[in-house]
Amino acid sequence: MFIHRHKVQFYETDLMGIVHHSNYLRFLEEARVAWACSKGLIDYQQPGSASHFAVYETHVKHFKPTYFGEDLEVDVEGKIEGNRIIFQYRLKGKEGRVCSVAQTVHVALGPDLKLIRIPHSMKAIMEKERWTETWL
Amino acid sequence: MFIHRHKVQFYETDLMGIVHHSNYLRFLEEARVAWACSKGLIDYQQPGSASHFAVYETHVKHFKPTYFGEDLEVDVEGKIEGNRIIFQYRLKGKEGRVCSVAQTVHVALGPDLKLIRIPHSMKAIMEKERWTETWL
Amino acid sequence: MFIHRHKVQFYETDLMGIVHHSNYLRFLEEARVAWACSKGLIDYQQPGSASHFAVYETHVKHFKPTYFGEDLEVDVEGKIEGNRIIFQYRLKGKEGRVCSVAQTVHVALGPDLKLIRIPHSMKAIMEKERWTETWL
Amino acid sequence: MFIHRHKVQFYETDLMGIVHHSNYLRFLEEARVAWACSKGLIDYQQPGSASHFAVYETHVKHFKPTYFGEDLEVDVEGKIEGNRIIFQYRLKGKEGRVCSVAQTVHVALGPDLKLIRIPHSMKAIMEKERWTETWL
Repeated sequence: MFIHRHKVQFYETDLMGIVHHSNYLRFLEEARVAWACSKGLIDYQQPGSASHFAVYETHVKHFKPTYFGEDLEVDVEGKIEGNRIIFQYRLKGKEGRVCSVAQTVHVALGPDLKLIRIPHSMKAIMEKERWTETWL
Repeated sequence: MFIHRHKVQFYETDLMGIVHHSNYLRFLEEARVAWACSKGLIDYQQPGSASHFAVYETHVKHFKPTYFGEDLEVDVEGKIEGNRIIFQYRLKGKEGRVCSVAQTVHVALGPDLKLIRIPHSMKAIMEKERWTETWL
Repeated sequence: MFIHRHKVQFYETDLMGIVHHSNYLRFLEEARVAWACSKGLIDYQQPGSASHFAVYETHVKHFKPTYFGEDLEVDVEGKIEGNRIIFQYRLKGKEGRVCSVAQTVHVALGPDLKLIRIPHSMKAIMEKERWTETWL
Repeated sequence: MFIHRHKVQFYETDLMGIVHHSNYLRFLEEARVAWACSKGLIDYQQPGSASHFAVYETHVKHFKPTYFGEDLEVDVEGKIEGNRIIFQYRLKGKEGRVCSVAQTVHVALGPDLKLIRIPHSMKAIMEKERWTETWL
């Protein structure tokens, strides 16, 4: 399974002393982009390639807060359903406890932000991925 | 219906030229906090009062992107279900078109971040609110 | 003098319970963009026009922290020196106390991010502005 | 010399296609905190220890933009002058080119956000640091 690591920064906390919830969508993006780069589906030299993962829907559940300096692990899995790309994430903090689970749904856009079919190369790669069970 | 207004800032855009999706959770928070302050449920002088709206779940669907300088309107509605507080949001951009709909689920935490019962004062206020239909 | 208003949001705070310092650059940008739009120098319909205010240098001094829900006022003044555009800012919080002062230096870039001469229209407008004294 | 590494994330870009300038203050904080943790001056288990590095002043110059996916290196040096802690930073991107230089000035605050003397332990450690030349 693909695992992305993120160390919680001071600037990601809020006045409750915990990570602000909007940052979780950023951690998910980090994990998704790292996954897609590892498969050659996003090319940093061609940032427009990220538009193939335009965000249609996000859904996050928070079980435990996370804290300044905590080392997070984000498990990532992806699959395709029709013309949509679906990722799920399991975010683990200290001692491997699950802090959050999430799912995001994506569509492929062209450079003009118009909907396109999912490129064959992406399909081919995503069909080989494993989707173990639904975490959310 | 409670309406919150937000003008899209330059720093809220990303390299696709549109508002980055993580910022929508911030717009929802702005709207929710403005709503709660208007009802006396969050007191800026006692920031800890915001912990009565700790985020348990967020769910957002994006229909249209939004752009630098766009004037957004966020409709907000809230209700209570058991020990959970539920808000829904409808985000409208240029010419009133609906860009996103969202729902967030909250629980009340004490200052030590432990779960508490929803305060009676909050219950009394939220029971008077209207929940027209589910937007998400 | 041009004044921009900003209400401090929950998501702008950090675990010290105050506004995180990186957000001040965002408040300055808000103020600068609002100023430039009021003069017709940035056009929201042509976001590329913002590249005429590319950031070369930022300098901020913090005298007092600011807090969740605080109503900030940002005074803005601008001038041109050679091929550089200079803005200064005075950020005031509760009871008009000065919390921060700042200066930012900008250069005009073309759409390809290459340095260009400051457009005449911008020069003409900025030369009419008042620069009362240096605040930083 | 202490070096901190940061990979530029998608959510750190803006509609110019480059890293938004407010994020540089976040990269500097990351570097400063990593430096302070490596010396035992900030303890993640006691986040209040970060208040010994409260931000009084920030000053950044940008020579080159940085881009999505770029691997940044931030050189960090620190020294004490009177009751102030001073850090300087040199931010390098692709092929080691210097993109930005910066300086930040800090004061030590107690948990109540009141000014305190710089703790002796901090003084002892910082006096051993090297300050090669001024980069800004």
